[in-house]
Amino acid sequence: MPTDQLSTTFAALADPTRRAILARLVTGDCSVTELAEPFAMSLPAVSKHLRVLERAGLIARGREAQWRPCRLEAARLKEVADWTERFRAIWEQRFDRLETYLQQLTAKEKRHGGKKRGQ
Amino acid sequence: MPTDQLSTTFAALADPTRRAILARLVTGDCSVTELAEPFAMSLPAVSKHLRVLERAGLIARGREAQWRPCRLEAARLKEVADWTERFRAIWEQRFDRLETYLQQLTAKEKRHGGKKRGQ
Repeated sequence: MPTDQLSTTFAALADPTRRAILARLVTGDCSVTELAEPFAMSLPAVSKHLRVLERAGLIARGREAQWRPCRLEAARLKEVADWTERFRAIWEQRFDRLETYLQQLTAKEKRHGGKKRGQ
Repeated sequence: MPTDQLSTTFAALADPTRRAILARLVTGDCSVTELAEPFAMSLPAVSKHLRVLERAGLIARGREAQWRPCRLEAARLKEVADWTERFRAIWEQRFDRLETYLQQLTAKEKRHGGKKRGQ
């Protein structure tokens, strides 16, 4: 089991239902019943996902006795975004190189009138 | 086991050693031996992590018989960054609200000469 915060966050995000729940909470706080609606899933199954998200600090739950609204805790997601930033230069470089390559290919095609050159 | 790409990516990132390996590869391609160096870990243990990263499409390995250099595949990390973007407005909002609150607090402190007000 992961013990560091970022590993716990990533493990919690490794599930499409949990990511969909977080995306839903962008629009505002929700009850468990509201969150369960779009999923073909029992309330206990949704509650289980919510516990994982809560333990990872990705959501917080209100203290109101019956209706415990879920709220997005975006700070953990900011940590994920910050972590990916160190790789931005790499993917931008790769896309730049791909673009240059495609431009060269197009220029070559034009020069040769679209004809295939021999090997 | 997660079956969608983003879940596979997040699951692969839920480990500090695997994240450290990716961070190391930002500086350039590496052999397994080079990657194992900073970790108190056997080569087979590192190889196991590399297989997880390779299956998730986060690294690619060269086809040279003996020395199979590992290369970062940043496209998957761009997907993670893109996914977090939808939450940016939320965390920026929260930090803005926090800043406003702190400014109000400081202003109030100044007005009252640092004295505590009664309830």
